[in-house]
Amino acid sequence: MIAEILCVGTELLMGQVLNTNAQYIARRLAAQGVSIYHQQVVGDNEQRLEEAYRLALSRADVVITSGGLGPTVDDITKRTAAKVLGKELVLNEEAYRMVCERFQQYHRKMTLNNQSQAMFTADTQILPNPNGTAPGAIVPAGEGKVIIHLPGPPHELEPMFHDQVEPWIQARSGHVLVSRYIRIFGMGESEVDMRLKDMEVRDNPTLSPYCSLGEVILRATARAEDAQTAAAMLEPVISEIRSRLGRVIYDVRTDDGGSLAETAVHTLRDKGWTIATAESLTGGLIASTMVEVPGASNVVKGGWVTYQTVSKTMLLGVPEETIARCNVVSEEVACAMAKSAREQLDVDIAVSATGLAGPDGGTPERPVGTVFLGIATRERVYAVPLHLSGNRARIRTLTVKHALHAVTREIKGEMEG
Amino acid sequence: MIAEILCVGTELLMGQVLNTNAQYIARRLAAQGVSIYHQQVVGDNEQRLEEAYRLALSRADVVITSGGLGPTVDDITKRTAAKVLGKELVLNEEAYRMVCERFQQYHRKMTLNNQSQAMFTADTQILPNPNGTAPGAIVPAGEGKVIIHLPGPPHELEPMFHDQVEPWIQARSGHVLVSRYIRIFGMGESEVDMRLKDMEVRDNPTLSPYCSLGEVILRATARAEDAQTAAAMLEPVISEIRSRLGRVIYDVRTDDGGSLAETAVHTLRDKGWTIATAESLTGGLIASTMVEVPGASNVVKGGWVTYQTVSKTMLLGVPEETIARCNVVSEEVACAMAKSAREQLDVDIAVSATGLAGPDGGTPERPVGTVFLGIATRERVYAVPLHLSGNRARIRTLTVKHALHAVTREIKGEMEG
Repeated sequence: MIAEILCVGTELLMGQVLNTNAQYIARRLAAQGVSIYHQQVVGDNEQRLEEAYRLALSRADVVITSGGLGPTVDDITKRTAAKVLGKELVLNEEAYRMVCERFQQYHRKMTLNNQSQAMFTADTQILPNPNGTAPGAIVPAGEGKVIIHLPGPPHELEPMFHDQVEPWIQARSGHVLVSRYIRIFGMGESEVDMRLKDMEVRDNPTLSPYCSLGEVILRATARAEDAQTAAAMLEPVISEIRSRLGRVIYDVRTDDGGSLAETAVHTLRDKGWTIATAESLTGGLIASTMVEVPGASNVVKGGWVTYQTVSKTMLLGVPEETIARCNVVSEEVACAMAKSAREQLDVDIAVSATGLAGPDGGTPERPVGTVFLGIATRERVYAVPLHLSGNRARIRTLTVKHALHAVTREIKGEMEG
Repeated sequence: MIAEILCVGTELLMGQVLNTNAQYIARRLAAQGVSIYHQQVVGDNEQRLEEAYRLALSRADVVITSGGLGPTVDDITKRTAAKVLGKELVLNEEAYRMVCERFQQYHRKMTLNNQSQAMFTADTQILPNPNGTAPGAIVPAGEGKVIIHLPGPPHELEPMFHDQVEPWIQARSGHVLVSRYIRIFGMGESEVDMRLKDMEVRDNPTLSPYCSLGEVILRATARAEDAQTAAAMLEPVISEIRSRLGRVIYDVRTDDGGSLAETAVHTLRDKGWTIATAESLTGGLIASTMVEVPGASNVVKGGWVTYQTVSKTMLLGVPEETIARCNVVSEEVACAMAKSAREQLDVDIAVSATGLAGPDGGTPERPVGTVFLGIATRERVYAVPLHLSGNRARIRTLTVKHALHAVTREIKGEMEG
C-alpha cells in the first residue's frame, strides 16, 4: 500500500502554521508499514488542489488530506475531491446528526453554512469526530483507491487517525503490525547503529532508529496475521537489544509517547518517594518538566530556582566561602544545593543543577557547557559532572534530561555515585 | 516572483523529523512578497526527486531545496538538479576551501567523500555556510529561473536564508520590502481582525495577522524603492494600529522574534528591578521562561516551586489557616505567595501563580482553568484572577504568558491592581 499526504491550507503554505499533521500522519503510516513517497502542501485554491489530487491519485493508493473541512467558502477539500472523482456532494444524514450534536454540546449556534460540513459523496464512509464539528471521510476513488479526509486541528486529526484510520489500514492490508518503542538516553545514534547494524537490515521484525535532542528512539515492528503472533515475534528482539545496549534503555513502550520525565515520575511513584529540585542554569525547567506529567503532584513536593549566586546562599544556605573557594559551578556547590533542598523539604531525593549555559561566562578551565548535577538521598550526596555542547537552549534542555535520568538511575540503584 | 519549496530527505518524508524548514522559508518568502503555491517533500530517491524538480520548475521561478547537501551517497540534491538541468558537477575551488576551513575549525578529519560537498555546476553562485560544512548554492536553471540549495539543519539554513538569500531576492525584485512585527497579548484574533478589517485589505503596506497560543502577531509590510521610504510608509500604519488596539500591544519589532518573556526581562532591566517567582501549577515554568532570555541573570534573582500544598507553608510561610479558609487556589494564597517571595529575596517585584491545570481537581465553584496570579511590589500586593480553557499544557502555558504580561504592565504602571 502506497499513501500520499496532501495538506490543504493557505496558512500552512505561507508558514503561519507549522505542519505537525504531516509529521504525525507520516510517522503513524510508517509504523503501519505503509509506504510514503510524497507529501504535498497546497493553499485554498481549487485549481491547484485539483491538480494535486490528480497527481497524488496517479501515484498512490491512499491519498490522505488534512484541513479544509470547515464551513467557509475557503474550505474546498471535499468539494474539489468530488469534482476530480466526477461525483456530487449530498447531505449525509448520519454526518448531519453528528454536526448538530457537536454544536449542541458546545452551546454554539449552527448557521446554514455548517450544513456543508455534512455534505459528502453518496458512497463515502463517515469518520465521526468526537473532538470537533467536522466529520472525516473515506471516499472511494476508483481502481481500489481512496481519498481520506481528516480535519486540520491536530487534536481532532490525531485521535481520528489513530482510532479509525489505523484499524481501516490494518483491515485492508490483511495483516497486523505491532510495534515497540525503545527509548534510549546516554548513547549516540552512531554507537546505537554500530551495535545493532545486523538487526537493522532484517525484514521482519524491522528496526528503525530516530533521534530527538540527545535521545535515540528505536522502533521495532513485527508483521503477522494476528497481534499475538506479532507481539511474540518482538520479544526476542527486545531481549537482544537490551543485552546489547544495557542501561541506556530507560523505557520500552507499546506507543510512541514517553519521556525521561515520565519515567522519573513513575519511578518515584512506584518507590513511594518524593522529590525536591534546586536549579540554577535550568531556572525551574527540571521541576516544570516533571510537573507536566500527570500524577506529578504525588511526588514533586517543591523546589528552588537559585539563579543568581546570592540566592544560593540566601535560600539554600550554600556557604559564601564554598562558592568563593570552589566556584559557583562546582561539585561542592551542586552537592550543597541538593543536600539543603532535600533537608528543607524533608524529601527522599533532591536533584540540583549548576552550570554555564552560555553564550558568555566560559573560561578555559570551565568552558560553556560545564554543568554539575547534585543528587542527595537520605543515604548519600554526590555530584555528576557533565560536559555538554551546543547553544544555550540545548545545554539547558540536555541538563534537564541528564538530571531526570540521574534521578531514575539513583532510585533504581544504578548509580555508582 | 513565484517560489516553490522542495524539501528532500527520507527522515522528513517518514515523519522522523518535523519540517520546520518549510515553515521558516515560507514565512520569510511571504514577508518578502514572494508568492508560494506549492510545497513538496520527497525522500532520498533520485527518480522521484528528478520528477519533483521538473514539476517545480514548470510552475515556479525559484525552486528552494533544503537538505541532501551532505557527503554520503544518500545526499542527492545537487547531483539530481544538475542531471535535470543537463549539467555536470565540477569541483569548485572556493567552496572546497570553505569546506576545508570548516573541518579545521571543528577539529574533524576530512574524508574523500567530503569533497562532494564542494562539487557544483560551473555556473553556480556559492552561498558560504558559517555554521556547517556544506555550502549552499544558487544554480541558474534556464529561462531566468534558479534552483537554490540550502542545507538541512535549521541552524545552518536559517542564517543562510536570512543573510544571503533574502538580499538576493530583494536585488532581483527591484524593490525593497520592510516589515514590522506587532506583538499582541490579551485580545483574540477575531477582535483584532474586526478592529483592523479596513486596513487588512490595503495593498501597500499590507497587514497580515497570525496566531500563536494566546498571542496575535501582526506583520505590516511596505514595498518601496528603498528601505527608508518603506520604513517611513510604515510609521503612520503603526500609529494607527496603536491607537486602535491600545495596551494589548506589548512589542513592535523589525524582526519576527520577541516574546512576552523578552519584553518582561527587558522592562525589568530598563527599570533596574529584580524579580522573584513563586509557582504552583506552572512548576518553575515562569522562571525558566525568563531565564531563556539572554541577560536574565541580572534581573531574575530566584524563586520557589511550591507544587504540593504543604510546600507553600514550609517554604513561603503561607498560613495553613488561610489555605483551609480560602482554598489553596485563591486570591489570598496567591498574594501570600508573592508577598513572601518578594520579602525573602528582597526583590522589587515578585509574581506567583496558583491554579487548577487539570485534568482532575475541578469543582463547580473552581473549574479546571481557574488560576490566580499574585503580584507583590514594595508598594502593594494584589491578585489577578484568570479563567483559562484548554488542556493541562495549554492552561500552564497561558498562565506563564499572563504572568509575564502582568509583570510588564505592573512595572509600566498599567495595572489598576
